[in-house]
Amino acid sequence: MNDVIKLLTSHRSVRKFEARELPEGLLETLIKAGQAAATSSHIQAYSVIRVKNPSSLEKLVELTGGQPYVASCSEFLVFCADMKRPLEAAARTGEDVVSGMTEQLLVATVDVSLMAQNVVIAAESEGLGICYIGGIRNNPQAVSELLELPKHVYPVFGMCIGYPAHEPDIKPRLPVDAVLKVDSYRDDETQVAAFDSTMHAYYQSRKGGNKDANWSQNLTPLFNQKLRPHMRDFLIEKGFTMK
Amino acid sequence: MNDVIKLLTSHRSVRKFEARELPEGLLETLIKAGQAAATSSHIQAYSVIRVKNPSSLEKLVELTGGQPYVASCSEFLVFCADMKRPLEAAARTGEDVVSGMTEQLLVATVDVSLMAQNVVIAAESEGLGICYIGGIRNNPQAVSELLELPKHVYPVFGMCIGYPAHEPDIKPRLPVDAVLKVDSYRDDETQVAAFDSTMHAYYQSRKGGNKDANWSQNLTPLFNQKLRPHMRDFLIEKGFTMK
Repeated sequence: MNDVIKLLTSHRSVRKFEARELPEGLLETLIKAGQAAATSSHIQAYSVIRVKNPSSLEKLVELTGGQPYVASCSEFLVFCADMKRPLEAAARTGEDVVSGMTEQLLVATVDVSLMAQNVVIAAESEGLGICYIGGIRNNPQAVSELLELPKHVYPVFGMCIGYPAHEPDIKPRLPVDAVLKVDSYRDDETQVAAFDSTMHAYYQSRKGGNKDANWSQNLTPLFNQKLRPHMRDFLIEKGFTMK
Repeated sequence: MNDVIKLLTSHRSVRKFEARELPEGLLETLIKAGQAAATSSHIQAYSVIRVKNPSSLEKLVELTGGQPYVASCSEFLVFCADMKRPLEAAARTGEDVVSGMTEQLLVATVDVSLMAQNVVIAAESEGLGICYIGGIRNNPQAVSELLELPKHVYPVFGMCIGYPAHEPDIKPRLPVDAVLKVDSYRDDETQVAAFDSTMHAYYQSRKGGNKDANWSQNLTPLFNQKLRPHMRDFLIEKGFTMK
């Protein structure tokens, strides 16, 4: 296993950070590394808001569901799918442009995700730790107002970056043969059952406190209710009308 | 700049591959590196179909718009957003589950993208080249039938992996200060104008043949028509009903 693959497989989310700034210029280097990721038709449908204002950070702690590391990390970034820039660039060539296609929502969501993951790898290669903040979608309208996000731009996730002040365990993943299938889809119920045992054992022995649960049980609260039911109307209001 | 960041910033899409297989076990290592990426609430909402069957590969060349490297690369993978596995796992705990939420479409699309980008970095760290194939969404219904993708699973993109048989130029990216904004969104029309000049110069001088175009002009055909207008109905039919 080469050093890059070792780095990739040593990822864990970091939620406690040293009170320490990034060296001058490093954040820009990380973002450039992010931009080097593949982008659909070179569209680069993303913008990143670096939140520095302390009152905005405090507000974001609250809007993301009370995650204090949003304000205590060294850099808090909001990754946005941005169709405004390419739509306007295309329109400036004098053509009528079409917005709101479902395909455009997918392209922008994938584009910003690939870019963000490169930022993560670059950050971790510099000894930094990160945590994605999906909670940015808890109150996307309020986040959009706070960060003045215009139409055709939506906040996909946040990211905390900083120097780790703890060493969380690496969480197990599904067996590779559940995820990787040959030539056609096949069910993976057997592998999931095995993984439920793996996760139960992990939760019993992990450093951060044991709990009596497995993977399937942990997923249940995500699906036995309508999680973030506002996303549809929010996206439509933002011009991602899913035509 | 450390070696990992050098690797990240040297990415370019590869579309010509040596007729050479990956060493035994490497693909599994790449997928495991992919799985190590962050995943929303540990949901791991992805499956990857490794297409080995030569007649399926030929069919996929056609379905993705006639891209021959889909069949001539060493490994062709179809990355799928997979909500079937977590939905069924949650249902097996005895609860009624909710599917089709827009939020679930986003979570699964982000999850598979983060995972895929880790696969890319792992592959490139081993001297491999890759090309994402968004053309998998040209005919997603036919792709789904070919790969027997069930409900709650949709093909997001393909990926060609293999040993590069050419050395494409690295394509420029938007200026970092267009993408990275502080505290609030601001327009980047000036930076886009500068980038149009950068891209015009790039197209005039690149190895692969010059063309008289800039970034905005290249984007126009993506927006002056309804690109992949079938995606909405296809997703709904697949159980991603965008509620």
